[in-house]
Amino acid sequence: MRIARFSIDGNVAFGVVEGDASTEGGPVLDIIKGHPFAEFERSGQKIPLSKVRLLPPVLPNKVVAVGRNYAEHAAELGNAVPEAPLTFFKPSTAVIGPGDAIAYPSFSSEVHHEAELAVVIGRMCREVPRERVKDVILGYTCANDITARDVQEREKQWARAKGFDTSCPLGPWVETELDPSDLGIMCTVNGQQRQLGRTSDMVRSIEDLIVHITEAMTLLPGDVVLTGTPAGVGPLNVGDEVAVTIEGIGTLTNKVIKRG
Amino acid sequence: MRIARFSIDGNVAFGVVEGDASTEGGPVLDIIKGHPFAEFERSGQKIPLSKVRLLPPVLPNKVVAVGRNYAEHAAELGNAVPEAPLTFFKPSTAVIGPGDAIAYPSFSSEVHHEAELAVVIGRMCREVPRERVKDVILGYTCANDITARDVQEREKQWARAKGFDTSCPLGPWVETELDPSDLGIMCTVNGQQRQLGRTSDMVRSIEDLIVHITEAMTLLPGDVVLTGTPAGVGPLNVGDEVAVTIEGIGTLTNKVIKRG
Repeated sequence: MRIARFSIDGNVAFGVVEGDASTEGGPVLDIIKGHPFAEFERSGQKIPLSKVRLLPPVLPNKVVAVGRNYAEHAAELGNAVPEAPLTFFKPSTAVIGPGDAIAYPSFSSEVHHEAELAVVIGRMCREVPRERVKDVILGYTCANDITARDVQEREKQWARAKGFDTSCPLGPWVETELDPSDLGIMCTVNGQQRQLGRTSDMVRSIEDLIVHITEAMTLLPGDVVLTGTPAGVGPLNVGDEVAVTIEGIGTLTNKVIKRG
Repeated sequence: MRIARFSIDGNVAFGVVEGDASTEGGPVLDIIKGHPFAEFERSGQKIPLSKVRLLPPVLPNKVVAVGRNYAEHAAELGNAVPEAPLTFFKPSTAVIGPGDAIAYPSFSSEVHHEAELAVVIGRMCREVPRERVKDVILGYTCANDITARDVQEREKQWARAKGFDTSCPLGPWVETELDPSDLGIMCTVNGQQRQLGRTSDMVRSIEDLIVHITEAMTLLPGDVVLTGTPAGVGPLNVGDEVAVTIEGIGTLTNKVIKRG
């Protein structure tokens, strides 16, 4: 099931996506009564997807991201795969949705795309045992871990380099029925392929990451875990259109603009 | 003015602290109508401070912290003062209030105290010019940037080492009328002095830090900026009582317990 968050006429709601581009009339959203973090019913009230504005599929309290989780990507930046998973935060103020603009920050001249599989947490949890990890996951979406590479190299902790406003595009929706262990993940810029990998190449599995993170901290419903980026990261320029496509989920597209 | 957040009989409210330990009957809280992030009125309904449970004085969306901002502290851990301010996040799930327990995490065997002046943001802001910094600050409180030092050394990014549950005690209240430029800051463990410094020894001023952070990201009302710790950091053990005292604000006391 695909759950989207959207606005129409100023109202915000969640809806279940039915159909796809091949469906006559295009896909529709069946509006959810309540929210998707508990058992919910579909209202039966349907709106064409083309009539709404998709929003970030969740409003995370925090995004916990993992660095250097694909060996080829670690190598391309001259880094080793770390002995312990390397975890950092992206703040809620960095999150944007599908179609929203990435605003090129004033303090960087080298902003990179990093296509990632995002895990959306479904329930409050801490110290999750490996065999319970699947129970705390609502589903999966696409993410772009936008990074000011020059700032990342200059500043030892990455709060500014990876936490600036608009640096965390998420979307287009949460796919709740998906085996995430071997999915194709691709990033294009202006239609040209830049990154291509498979989630099976992750150094640490999603189970490992959730166990490691929740050993330290509570995750809340709607929190997001980014699982690292495959090789092929590279620069974005103002005017570029960057798209992250993950097999079984869909495509997250964002345009890069000058910060206003 | 001192603004506290508290609970009584299950209700949560903000109140203005009137009087102090020398006042006959002890200090009282004058309950605020609404919240302190806009113009507010005092209700005139007063409760003795001794009758309530103080909560974290704000519920930050994010805490942005700064490392190595006192030269003597950087040196004591063998670090240079960084060329650019070193910024990292502590998540909302790490925040606890005065009197709450610091739960010693299972994945560390060297947890340190770090007494810090905390700046509480009063309004949504981005790209704040130096001369406007004072306008975005609601006030100041005490913080303890609890750190798993062994994990910090092992893991290159500090999300787990400084972001674990209970690693961000804040309180006891927000002091809104205070010149923060030269305040004594002290940390004691079981009554023994461990850290002693003055905010005048900060490498970067509060103005510098807010300009640097908001160049990258939006701060929200209730967000907190930690300004670094003076020399004298050291270990905490289960059973210890750690207290951060800042001149003109008050004392934030927390006990260390075994994580349950």
